[in-house]
Amino acid sequence: MSKISLLSRAVALLSVLCVMGLPASAQNKAGPGPLVLQSQGSFFVGGRDVKSDTLSTLPAYAPSGTITVDQMYVHYEVPANAGKHYPLTLIHGCCLTGKTWETTPDGRMGWDEFFVRRGYPVYVIDQSWRGRSAGSVAAINAVKMGKAPVDQLPTVFSAGHEGAWTIFRFGPEYPKVYDGMRYPLRAQAEFWKQMVPDWSNAVPTPNPTVPALSELAQKLQGTVLISHSQSGIYPFQTVALSTKGVAGIISIEPGACPNAAGDLTPYKTVPIMVLWGDNVDLSPRWSPRLKGCRAFVAALNAAGGKAEVLVLPEMGIHGNSHMLMQDNNSLQIAAMLDTWIARHVGHRP
Amino acid sequence: MSKISLLSRAVALLSVLCVMGLPASAQNKAGPGPLVLQSQGSFFVGGRDVKSDTLSTLPAYAPSGTITVDQMYVHYEVPANAGKHYPLTLIHGCCLTGKTWETTPDGRMGWDEFFVRRGYPVYVIDQSWRGRSAGSVAAINAVKMGKAPVDQLPTVFSAGHEGAWTIFRFGPEYPKVYDGMRYPLRAQAEFWKQMVPDWSNAVPTPNPTVPALSELAQKLQGTVLISHSQSGIYPFQTVALSTKGVAGIISIEPGACPNAAGDLTPYKTVPIMVLWGDNVDLSPRWSPRLKGCRAFVAALNAAGGKAEVLVLPEMGIHGNSHMLMQDNNSLQIAAMLDTWIARHVGHRP
Repeated sequence: MSKISLLSRAVALLSVLCVMGLPASAQNKAGPGPLVLQSQGSFFVGGRDVKSDTLSTLPAYAPSGTITVDQMYVHYEVPANAGKHYPLTLIHGCCLTGKTWETTPDGRMGWDEFFVRRGYPVYVIDQSWRGRSAGSVAAINAVKMGKAPVDQLPTVFSAGHEGAWTIFRFGPEYPKVYDGMRYPLRAQAEFWKQMVPDWSNAVPTPNPTVPALSELAQKLQGTVLISHSQSGIYPFQTVALSTKGVAGIISIEPGACPNAAGDLTPYKTVPIMVLWGDNVDLSPRWSPRLKGCRAFVAALNAAGGKAEVLVLPEMGIHGNSHMLMQDNNSLQIAAMLDTWIARHVGHRP
Repeated sequence: MSKISLLSRAVALLSVLCVMGLPASAQNKAGPGPLVLQSQGSFFVGGRDVKSDTLSTLPAYAPSGTITVDQMYVHYEVPANAGKHYPLTLIHGCCLTGKTWETTPDGRMGWDEFFVRRGYPVYVIDQSWRGRSAGSVAAINAVKMGKAPVDQLPTVFSAGHEGAWTIFRFGPEYPKVYDGMRYPLRAQAEFWKQMVPDWSNAVPTPNPTVPALSELAQKLQGTVLISHSQSGIYPFQTVALSTKGVAGIISIEPGACPNAAGDLTPYKTVPIMVLWGDNVDLSPRWSPRLKGCRAFVAALNAAGGKAEVLVLPEMGIHGNSHMLMQDNNSLQIAAMLDTWIARHVGHRP
């Protein structure tokens, strides 16, 4: 199927969804009613033991010993009515944690719960070395203890509000706001609290999150990987390791798509959606990334793949930021994803 | 009431509970049945904005800007049958996150879900600068950029497995095991994955978690603060700030109790339990802390307080580690806490 016909189909589908709007349950101000879970819990995937002599500079904790790093924290909820839905795995982006998908800064339902209510088992991860997934501070203590030079301090950064404002496309530059912006800016302070330091430059490539995602996908015997921004490329890197367990990929505003001129074999058999918000073409950071994704999807489909790029304003949905899972139409977009999954990924046999 | 009579009462109560054992639902290997939630979600409490010129050493992220730190991540679940139960706030200890209270390393139900099933709204936090609660890496980058001397690197440590083994009292020294140890050691590798670097020595005293707990308690208009180990002292520090919203304190193996010779006024009106596992007297680290807590509780009760120290082996329950919320009798202990809360804290009016 050509890119054009795929797009036409998607536009038609999305138009219907826009007219339909949200399900009554999500619009009900009195609350959506009880949530019935079959099970919930958390666990880790991956991880390796590392010995170090610079774990601590405090007398109460030994400097030498073994720690475990690279594991990926996973929290899950399985609804009582899961049926044959494939589980969804929600993978946050730069400088954020699994909190991304939970209650929005202005207190609305997150995608985690929305999809559970739609019948999907939902797995929310913290990337390796982030949130509840441990990293190591041994390199810091090695310098502090005089055992390593200063230039061996890890490359770790925080994104400041001012820079993040532009990166997350709330506006062209801090504190200007794009017309019709759907991000709940009145709760902006709550969003800033979600941001954490980012160690992804201090870990190997691909990020240890990637093999952990592959292990999780195989454990689940099928999951749709939903990634965002920095982690946008992870599902592609995951299927490059193994297509086992990856039932579909939804990559939201990825930092990169795979190279259109590279080996496209791993991506051919997996249904893929690459989703973009508004004002992308106005952003020197994001505009070339969208172009790269268009080239990748065109090349993949020409080679027999089944991928599509969806750009919300091209479907008549305007004003979405980079954090579209928290925008004021976040559940409308989630409902679109639900429909896309039903059509393109389907259910377990 | 004297310490002795309080203890006798507790022993009698606990004996009954031991005979009763676990509720059928928790023993059922087929699973405890559906979990019905009225609501769930997450938010942050606290937080302050900090300006810095050393946020990043990467070209893609500006070195100068504002970040938000000190906020405390809170995840909550409210059961459909919450009734008039006070919410519980679960506060993890050193080198750990809110994961402490979730699924145990060997896959059993965590205290978070157990208490929800018992009708309590449950709030699980990540301490400030830990897990999903952001810290700052500006001090690291200041040194990396040559703007600060090496000795200004933050004091941050990881507890190695070998040292943690003794601290968590799995045995007297790694890898020896105490007789009758109830910790699920066959799943030990999963526990090591829960451990994260600890920044608590790089933040002000009291830990920013403490004012955040006070803010949370007031927001909830009443909560039982359940702390562990490093955070054992936090509920006491919280009521020293304000007793508002603190309906009760359960401090599990605290790193410290308040000074018995200090001002005891803030603690007099709050029902308090200090809970200890087994083999405490064999531990040079923990033995003096138990003594300190006994002295505090005796002094507080003499001054009109209502506190008790419960030591599990003195009640015929043997083999518990420092991580008793994950031991193989973890839900039996949780059921004891439920009963203690019902008797000593009661319900909302």
